[in-house]
Amino acid sequence: MTIRAVGTHAADQPLGPLQIARRVPGPHDLRIEIAFCGICHSDLHQVRSEWAGTLYPCVPGHEIVGRVTEVGAHVTAYKPGDLVGVGCIVDSCRDCPDCAAGLENYCDGMVGTYNGPTSDAPGHTLGGYSQAIVVHERYVLKITHPEDQLAAVAPLLCAGITTYSPLRHWGAGPGKKVGVVGIGGLGHMGIKLAHAMGAHVVAFTTSPEKVADAKALGADEAVVSRNAEEMAAHAQSFDLILNTVAAPHDLDAFLALLKRDGTMTLVGAPAVPHPSPNVFNLIMRRRSLAGSMIGGIPETQEMLDFCAAHGIVAEIEMIRADQIEQAYERMLKGDVKYRFVMDIATMA
Amino acid sequence: MTIRAVGTHAADQPLGPLQIARRVPGPHDLRIEIAFCGICHSDLHQVRSEWAGTLYPCVPGHEIVGRVTEVGAHVTAYKPGDLVGVGCIVDSCRDCPDCAAGLENYCDGMVGTYNGPTSDAPGHTLGGYSQAIVVHERYVLKITHPEDQLAAVAPLLCAGITTYSPLRHWGAGPGKKVGVVGIGGLGHMGIKLAHAMGAHVVAFTTSPEKVADAKALGADEAVVSRNAEEMAAHAQSFDLILNTVAAPHDLDAFLALLKRDGTMTLVGAPAVPHPSPNVFNLIMRRRSLAGSMIGGIPETQEMLDFCAAHGIVAEIEMIRADQIEQAYERMLKGDVKYRFVMDIATMA
Ligand SMILES: [Zn+2]
Ligand SMILES: [Zn+2]
Ligand SMILES: [Zn+2]
Ligand SMILES: [Zn+2]
Repeated sequence: MTIRAVGTHAADQPLGPLQIARRVPGPHDLRIEIAFCGICHSDLHQVRSEWAGTLYPCVPGHEIVGRVTEVGAHVTAYKPGDLVGVGCIVDSCRDCPDCAAGLENYCDGMVGTYNGPTSDAPGHTLGGYSQAIVVHERYVLKITHPEDQLAAVAPLLCAGITTYSPLRHWGAGPGKKVGVVGIGGLGHMGIKLAHAMGAHVVAFTTSPEKVADAKALGADEAVVSRNAEEMAAHAQSFDLILNTVAAPHDLDAFLALLKRDGTMTLVGAPAVPHPSPNVFNLIMRRRSLAGSMIGGIPETQEMLDFCAAHGIVAEIEMIRADQIEQAYERMLKGDVKYRFVMDIATMA
Repeated sequence: MTIRAVGTHAADQPLGPLQIARRVPGPHDLRIEIAFCGICHSDLHQVRSEWAGTLYPCVPGHEIVGRVTEVGAHVTAYKPGDLVGVGCIVDSCRDCPDCAAGLENYCDGMVGTYNGPTSDAPGHTLGGYSQAIVVHERYVLKITHPEDQLAAVAPLLCAGITTYSPLRHWGAGPGKKVGVVGIGGLGHMGIKLAHAMGAHVVAFTTSPEKVADAKALGADEAVVSRNAEEMAAHAQSFDLILNTVAAPHDLDAFLALLKRDGTMTLVGAPAVPHPSPNVFNLIMRRRSLAGSMIGGIPETQEMLDFCAAHGIVAEIEMIRADQIEQAYERMLKGDVKYRFVMDIATMA
């Protein structure tokens, strides 16, 4: 049984309608009818082969929400009709220390929701710009938000967990001063989550016109990072800075704002390296420059439950399936507040 | 009362004999007759003005050991005749969170043992290449090693604490795999200390001829870092890597050897930046690149006591005061196993 999807057969061809197949659900699988799929920068990098190793046909999408339509014989935790999500991970080795710790995101055998190895046709995974997906229950998340928020829940599956995990890991919470660099798809979630965790949140943006937006999202303060004086006022004051900007930029300007023992965590990797950070900035205050990638499945569930409890969803702009190329162009210009979400019903 | 010292009046003049004065001990001061002073790379950088802001006359030296000759009226913890040490710090603000935490090394008001601000003539501190020094008791360390080891204790005051502090901070100990990059003044102490803490220690060197030396110092394994195959065998296996190499080099080769959540700590800062580290290496395994600078006074005492208990001293080569320029030249070539120590008695 084939279903409709949106993807492409080559890096230099625009995305358009494709027909794909999904496997028959195994005993531990769920079949999910996809309602909405968020549009992540990674989708664009992968489908346009800006990262190595893209396999075609390529169907991106890893911010998936929908409804269970079929469950395998051994599945007990889900039933048809349940609202569920699938994020960046659809499989892993299930047998390493990372998997045992619920950190499937760091497993060497992690299988991405698209472009990952699979025995299903065509030999690599196909993502959420599609009408349905079949996923092992271990990698499926329960959604308890009200159903009318479902579209805005989709971006939590990547942008949400990618910011939630480092905020939790490095202890964002009451009494902590947390910076969030960049107010885009990731950054706007970082601000909402850090605020809900009880931290004092300072947003950093290069755009003075985003200051008011940042505060509306939950930032206690917003700093225009091009303004050296504003930056200097925050010297040596941050416990944690979550840096969501993937474009190459001056890391030292932010490292200098960390307290002793503070950490700046990068969640985006630039195509061209950042200018090399000044080692003195690390040594002088025992600071750390770290990285974090998505989050594990149990923590993704925890994040969804946290968001449901705090009424947190992403700020989204809905698109039709046939608007994906325009959405990519606008995303590249930062012209979206703050995440595009594809209405999969428009594929019908 | 003037004393003899070794220093220089200008960056481009060789070090030679100088006459300097020390203050009369205040109520909390100790006057110390210096027996030996270790020769640190920082001494050379500072005295040759390779770092900004060197003040002249410059008398380097911050690995100081000797005997108390006079104590201020309020000093109760020391008496004349005691064996003591002075490291990189001779004063700090004494009133900030860092000082309160015993981390004077991170205090904004830290006063270095040379080239630091002081009301004593000539307005900046003069270091341990001299016959005596006067220091506030807070910044003096007790030495309990046997007296015949005194010269070899001197390098513990900088090289020892600079490696001990990050090893302790990032949890080197039984069950942990710890790398030490570079087998020089700092690295040889890092190997000895990590071994004594109970870690599995792997030394990294660019010189195959240093492999046997590294093992003799206590390394369980030694890897020639230019050998890609040897390096690959250790991929994703380290909890902590202590990187003592200040010369610019490829950090990625070592970051890739860290486990998930592993940390590489830099204790040397290059004059020219390292090639910019690959952010993917941080993100993919939630790794950290950190820095650490010396250590606080209480931890320096802890380190000295630890070394005394474990019979640890530095490996040294003794020089006369008039051999300092030759020692610097040999140090620049890495031609020392592993620390020069000046016999201050040769100034007489
Ligand atoms: Zn994503
Ligand atoms: Zn695994
Ligand atoms: Zn030193
Ligand atoms: Zn202080």
